[in-house]
Amino acid sequence: MRAVEFIAKKRDGGEHTEEELRDFIGRVTDGSMPDYQISAWLMAVFLRGMTMQETRALTRAMRDSGKRIDLSDVPNGPALDKHSTGGVGDKTSLVVVPLLAAAGIPILKMSGRGLGFSGGTIDKLEAIPGLRTTLKSEEAKAQVRSIGLAIVSQSSQLAPADGKLYALRDVTATVESIPLIASSIMSKKLAGGSGRILLDVKVGSGSFMRELEQARALASTLVTIGVQEGVPTQAVLTDMEEPLGWTVGNALEVEEAIRVLQNPETAEPRFLALCLGLVMHGLLACERARNAEEAQATAERLLRSGTGAAKLEAMIRAQGGPKDLNAVRTALPHAPITCRAEAPEEGFIAAIDARAVGLLAAAMGAGRTTKEDRIDPSVGIVLHKKRGAWVRAGEPLATLHLRDESASQKEHFKALLLSAYRFTPAPPVLPPSPILEVLSSS
Amino acid sequence: MRAVEFIAKKRDGGEHTEEELRDFIGRVTDGSMPDYQISAWLMAVFLRGMTMQETRALTRAMRDSGKRIDLSDVPNGPALDKHSTGGVGDKTSLVVVPLLAAAGIPILKMSGRGLGFSGGTIDKLEAIPGLRTTLKSEEAKAQVRSIGLAIVSQSSQLAPADGKLYALRDVTATVESIPLIASSIMSKKLAGGSGRILLDVKVGSGSFMRELEQARALASTLVTIGVQEGVPTQAVLTDMEEPLGWTVGNALEVEEAIRVLQNPETAEPRFLALCLGLVMHGLLACERARNAEEAQATAERLLRSGTGAAKLEAMIRAQGGPKDLNAVRTALPHAPITCRAEAPEEGFIAAIDARAVGLLAAAMGAGRTTKEDRIDPSVGIVLHKKRGAWVRAGEPLATLHLRDESASQKEHFKALLLSAYRFTPAPPVLPPSPILEVLSSS
Repeated sequence: MRAVEFIAKKRDGGEHTEEELRDFIGRVTDGSMPDYQISAWLMAVFLRGMTMQETRALTRAMRDSGKRIDLSDVPNGPALDKHSTGGVGDKTSLVVVPLLAAAGIPILKMSGRGLGFSGGTIDKLEAIPGLRTTLKSEEAKAQVRSIGLAIVSQSSQLAPADGKLYALRDVTATVESIPLIASSIMSKKLAGGSGRILLDVKVGSGSFMRELEQARALASTLVTIGVQEGVPTQAVLTDMEEPLGWTVGNALEVEEAIRVLQNPETAEPRFLALCLGLVMHGLLACERARNAEEAQATAERLLRSGTGAAKLEAMIRAQGGPKDLNAVRTALPHAPITCRAEAPEEGFIAAIDARAVGLLAAAMGAGRTTKEDRIDPSVGIVLHKKRGAWVRAGEPLATLHLRDESASQKEHFKALLLSAYRFTPAPPVLPPSPILEVLSSS
Repeated sequence: MRAVEFIAKKRDGGEHTEEELRDFIGRVTDGSMPDYQISAWLMAVFLRGMTMQETRALTRAMRDSGKRIDLSDVPNGPALDKHSTGGVGDKTSLVVVPLLAAAGIPILKMSGRGLGFSGGTIDKLEAIPGLRTTLKSEEAKAQVRSIGLAIVSQSSQLAPADGKLYALRDVTATVESIPLIASSIMSKKLAGGSGRILLDVKVGSGSFMRELEQARALASTLVTIGVQEGVPTQAVLTDMEEPLGWTVGNALEVEEAIRVLQNPETAEPRFLALCLGLVMHGLLACERARNAEEAQATAERLLRSGTGAAKLEAMIRAQGGPKDLNAVRTALPHAPITCRAEAPEEGFIAAIDARAVGLLAAAMGAGRTTKEDRIDPSVGIVLHKKRGAWVRAGEPLATLHLRDESASQKEHFKALLLSAYRFTPAPPVLPPSPILEVLSSS
């Protein structure tokens, strides 16, 4: 099929065949289809959508566009991959992956970098001096075999077609399309070779899916693709309205994750509940528990026993970081100045807009506004109060950890942060659990 | 506004401001917006549409993207520009422009080349040995001043943004969008500087607008833009279901146009009615007649008097072609072989699919499948019978004028031609006039 006919078919709401999509992805991968034709097609897909059949076919074609990792011979498998659709203050993987590894589940997690309001696990790990995330797949596999876990940068050799499509989507306003997001995520997960997939689909201001219905549709598409390709997949919809935990910023979040594993009693309660919930669903997905009660008890036990902290320590050391977690905490960079933001009025904190906080963190240097931006691992925001808390006027809400900024710049950042808050005289109604819904493949 | 926000605004059905569109066209013209962003926006416009306000603003921005010709000082003005949206066998301009010039209306017609099923006036004129169509605008203007008419190639200096957008639309399946077609046509017409515009909007199989309703919407958009920019504009919707006249192919069509002007009694009746109808509306638009009856009478008189033929002769000579029309006919190239197609059955010809015939002509070498194709001016198709005629089985329907093709290729072309015909036992119902509707600015 000629490129123009292929584009016109989707433009007119037609359904692509598997052959057409394989041919298209082939031409994307070998560079023979020009960017302007790809982007016209992406916009047509954004506005016309894709059937489940098409989304699966596109995912398979993208999965097969590059290298595939074989994890079938990893001991105690099938191996698990865990993925979050991205949020603000989302250091969840740094807590959940070690805990699941502590339960004996082999995990090779491939992660990306942050862009815009959303942070990336790789950026957080790279705040640790010496730590390498760019492991070759054989090296990563060997690490999983020896210590049970690895978190590494998504290799550009896995699903390279996705790399090309994503770069174009990012500059053509075609990111937020369910079939495009789903095929992007699942092509990489399937090429990564894990036999089980656990997905954390974020919902709310600090995520790509702001509405529950959209997020549910995405989760359902992701799970369906996984299952139909023979990989049991579980998706958990989780609340991403306010920043997760106490911190936003790379070194600050690593420190927080370590603290959650070492001293869970200091953890921000909703973030801790989110981590335990994800561990519980991971245990169920990997058949390490017979039912929810057993899974919950195991998750709690793993956390309290400190074996999660030991796994994180082992991983950081294996990837070139400091020898123990105390050394990691000492080695993490600190911002030169801090600046406190106080409550402008009395009341209950009804909302802390996660997107606004994420964009502020990026503007401060903790994230990227464009892909070329360099990150400063030391900067970020520490929240002292979360949604539902009652505050007096003048009480400290948060502390900004800043580069050596001008006084006016500091005031500007502080004003941006405060604009993310909403106060009410009555306590706000919050979702009872950070886990809103579970979509399972079984 | 950042490019991604600009694209997202249209993607979400938003309305662009004049400033946004000027900025966009500025970046298209100076090359600072990459093709992949332009094409994503084009697809969003295709699927989301544009308001009249936006279409006007886009047209103005494109008009101002390059040179503008000033024809205000041409004697006996305002000058007229005539435009057809493109059809099959459409040699109308070669008849209508000389007749209107014969009525004393100064005409500078800028034309394009054919692509796909649709032929182009410039390709037809270039079938005449020696004739130049690439006149500089000053040269073209001088010719209008001295002999009253010129048909020249669209200069790439007029509305250069349209050149870039059109090239991208052509390869991204975004051609058939009313706001994009309308702004493309009208930006060039307005930059061309004529004070009056006569538009022939084709409807049917051999045109870009296959349905009357679409064509009406396009015509209405074109007329509104013209009028609101201060240029009285008239649009005529005309039937483009079967090929126009007796011939399809460049030299063949030039010969037919000459014959219509020299011996109107031999003209195919519906094509002659179309030409006279367009002349009549041109006379009314340019206030060379007080009413339709007077305009019709003048059109008939101009045709019968031979002054139209004299004007065409003068134009061909002025642009470097042979000295008179007989010399033109002698000089026109002839195809080496011909091949007759006979009616496979008895019946009334109910349809001759213009698009199929146009695509066949392009495949034979009379048109272009891609922009790089070279045209053979000698090849084409002569139709002996048109819609509504009753034919016996075996009666000649048409003659193919071919390059030296293989026997199987000849049979293939003949089969393609015959597949364009539909026969019925009862006479088909045809529109009473080739002119279906008239949209006027007054």
